[in-house]
Amino acid sequence: MITSTSNGQVKELLQLQKKSKVRNERNIFVVEGIKMFLEAPRNRIEKVFISETLFNKKKQELDLEGLKVEILSDKVFSYVSDTKTPQGILCIVRQKKTKLEEIFRQKQAHLMILENLQDPGNLGTIVRTAEGAGVSGIILSKDCVDIYNPKTIRSTMGSIYRMPFLYVENLEKTIEEVKKQKIKVYAAHLQGKNNYDEENYKSGCAFLIGNEGNGLSQEIAEMADIWVKIRMHGQVESLNAAIASSILMFEVCRQRR
Amino acid sequence: MITSTSNGQVKELLQLQKKSKVRNERNIFVVEGIKMFLEAPRNRIEKVFISETLFNKKKQELDLEGLKVEILSDKVFSYVSDTKTPQGILCIVRQKKTKLEEIFRQKQAHLMILENLQDPGNLGTIVRTAEGAGVSGIILSKDCVDIYNPKTIRSTMGSIYRMPFLYVENLEKTIEEVKKQKIKVYAAHLQGKNNYDEENYKSGCAFLIGNEGNGLSQEIAEMADIWVKIRMHGQVESLNAAIASSILMFEVCRQRR
Repeated sequence: MITSTSNGQVKELLQLQKKSKVRNERNIFVVEGIKMFLEAPRNRIEKVFISETLFNKKKQELDLEGLKVEILSDKVFSYVSDTKTPQGILCIVRQKKTKLEEIFRQKQAHLMILENLQDPGNLGTIVRTAEGAGVSGIILSKDCVDIYNPKTIRSTMGSIYRMPFLYVENLEKTIEEVKKQKIKVYAAHLQGKNNYDEENYKSGCAFLIGNEGNGLSQEIAEMADIWVKIRMHGQVESLNAAIASSILMFEVCRQRR
Repeated sequence: MITSTSNGQVKELLQLQKKSKVRNERNIFVVEGIKMFLEAPRNRIEKVFISETLFNKKKQELDLEGLKVEILSDKVFSYVSDTKTPQGILCIVRQKKTKLEEIFRQKQAHLMILENLQDPGNLGTIVRTAEGAGVSGIILSKDCVDIYNPKTIRSTMGSIYRMPFLYVENLEKTIEEVKKQKIKVYAAHLQGKNNYDEENYKSGCAFLIGNEGNGLSQEIAEMADIWVKIRMHGQVESLNAAIASSILMFEVCRQRR
């Protein structure tokens, strides 16, 4: 059992929680909580860290056999946990790299393309809702918040394991690739002409979603085939990025039913 | 200028930021930031607290005439602010009480009824989206998170001033009142029979939305005329409460266009 916060593994775990650079260099990420552990694909789990209390209470139920397990004293566990009331389990999981071609292989594509999204909770909620809406893949510009941020992972509620996504170096080039696949590209834009529900999404479609504060950059918005807007009542200028994305994703769902 | 954190007004402001009880006893709440100040109805502003720096820079633009203004040293301002990077303006605003009858007076009612919602960000996002979707009013059970929580207010992006809402002592009784108005009551429920888009929302409608972790209580769910669900792909069990609410609200919008 590890009882000291100056233990090398503890220090490393903390680095992995806090630094996207460390996570991405090592191609791993950290998930926390019982649900996130149970839903993790077993063959991607590198190591499990469990608190003394949880280990003594639930070691049978959790089915830890065949996994590398480290027990941490409750104090040390609280120290490395990213939550206020830790459930007592953290795991290191291997990242899964999706290629653009894999996303294209799915017929009737439904893509979400995120530019410079900054809020970890928004991103996690989009990932979760995207799985629910049957989205085929999420493409992120390299300046988006890191999807392996602990807060993002929590908000995905497990969809992080199942939703195909990839970060791209050059978003413009990637959008060109998308268009070559005959996938229609829609920009969610306050200056959109048509309301979002006036378009037909039965064929392949992709939505460009911009930064929370500033929306899409001019260059990216101009690459879209069509600008659509979500028409609104009252004095609301715009919707939260995750809300706007969800309304669009479920409109596609609705039309395809 | 107030330069000490032990000043009486500063202490009171901090109490108002932190304690819903203090806010509700005095029928006021605190908003922060330039946008929130500019959108606040002038006749409801009790007092403005402004940082020395912002005052010196923008006293003209902000049009403070006729308002009670206190200047705080930048250090004191940071101390009372609820944000990491304060914009330099806080105001005390009077609460506005909406009555159930006022909500009913609007024709073609579209109500959201929230039971035991706990996340301040979710509530704020629902308020913001509700204004955008033309919702006529939000009814909250008394055990919902306080709508005047600083995080909720921030997430409303100003809709807090404009969206009619009320907390009710007895949610069951209130739902009975709603039904008496011939408003159809839908429960958003994982065991819903019909998909949400198979219903007709052109007449008055109300949606029951439950707690983030546990959904609706059995007693409240059973009061609904119809249970609807948002059918999903993948392994997603449920959507975030604000996302589910938004999909429902904009489906009503879509049908009524």
